Amino acid sequence: MKSKINDVKWIDIPKITDPRGNLAVVEKHTLPFAIKRVYYLYDVPSDASRGGHAHKKLLQVLVAVSGSFEVIIDDGEQRKKILLNKPNKALFIPNGIWREIENFSSGSVCLSLVSDEFSEVDYIRDYDDFLAYFEVKM
Amino acid sequence: MKSKINDVKWIDIPKITDPRGNLAVVEKHTLPFAIKRVYYLYDVPSDASRGGHAHKKLLQVLVAVSGSFEVIIDDGEQRKKILLNKPNKALFIPNGIWREIENFSSGSVCLSLVSDEFSEVDYIRDYDDFLAYFEVKM
Repeated sequence: MKSKINDVKWIDIPKITDPRGNLAVVEKHTLPFAIKRVYYLYDVPSDASRGGHAHKKLLQVLVAVSGSFEVIIDDGEQRKKILLNKPNKALFIPNGIWREIENFSSGSVCLSLVSDEFSEVDYIRDYDDFLAYFEVKM
Repeated sequence: MKSKINDVKWIDIPKITDPRGNLAVVEKHTLPFAIKRVYYLYDVPSDASRGGHAHKKLLQVLVAVSGSFEVIIDDGEQRKKILLNKPNKALFIPNGIWREIENFSSGSVCLSLVSDEFSEVDYIRDYDDFLAYFEVKM
């Protein structure tokens, strides 16, 4: 079944608040998938834009562990822009959602936790291919 | 066998350099263990100190994904202070090493990837207990 932008959800990352700093912990049941790969984006120029792809199967969460950025999500029918700026708020993006990331604040860091090892065939990097693959009716 | 501070190693996180920002990727074979839990420390006051514990079995890497901090490692015989300030340099800390984290820069974020789910019995939170558990000869 094709994902819709309403399937993109916030996940609260449990946070241990402490005068010595806050600790956000992603454990077994925090995410709807087991973490197979971790990556993070840093030293991003404020005018840069990233993303512009969808995944056939991969599930992902994004977290602004430092600073802020905006995530554009698109299911082929609807498009929405979401501001990420809290280290304990993760954005869950299921497969079948086109996404772009932009408007990075200075010093921002985007942490990404995903459900699979890297596989180029899982990527759809062209928007028209995305619409065709998921048979979105125009 | 008891770990020594020389068993604490740098791991280069593969980095994809791009004018739109740098992407550091932790995949299957990047670390000497599978990632079971991810946590990150943020909003740390610059005068705070964290850590002060060892693990019986857990393996861990620490990364300064933003800013910098110092990690003190101690095997009961030797003690060493290590500055972390590069998002693509992870510090691997095996089990049996006492560690403390201090001297956080403003806005720093400490990302931690570990080999197991949380287990309080794996923690040793008292330095003398640490020496006794690993039978360090004084």
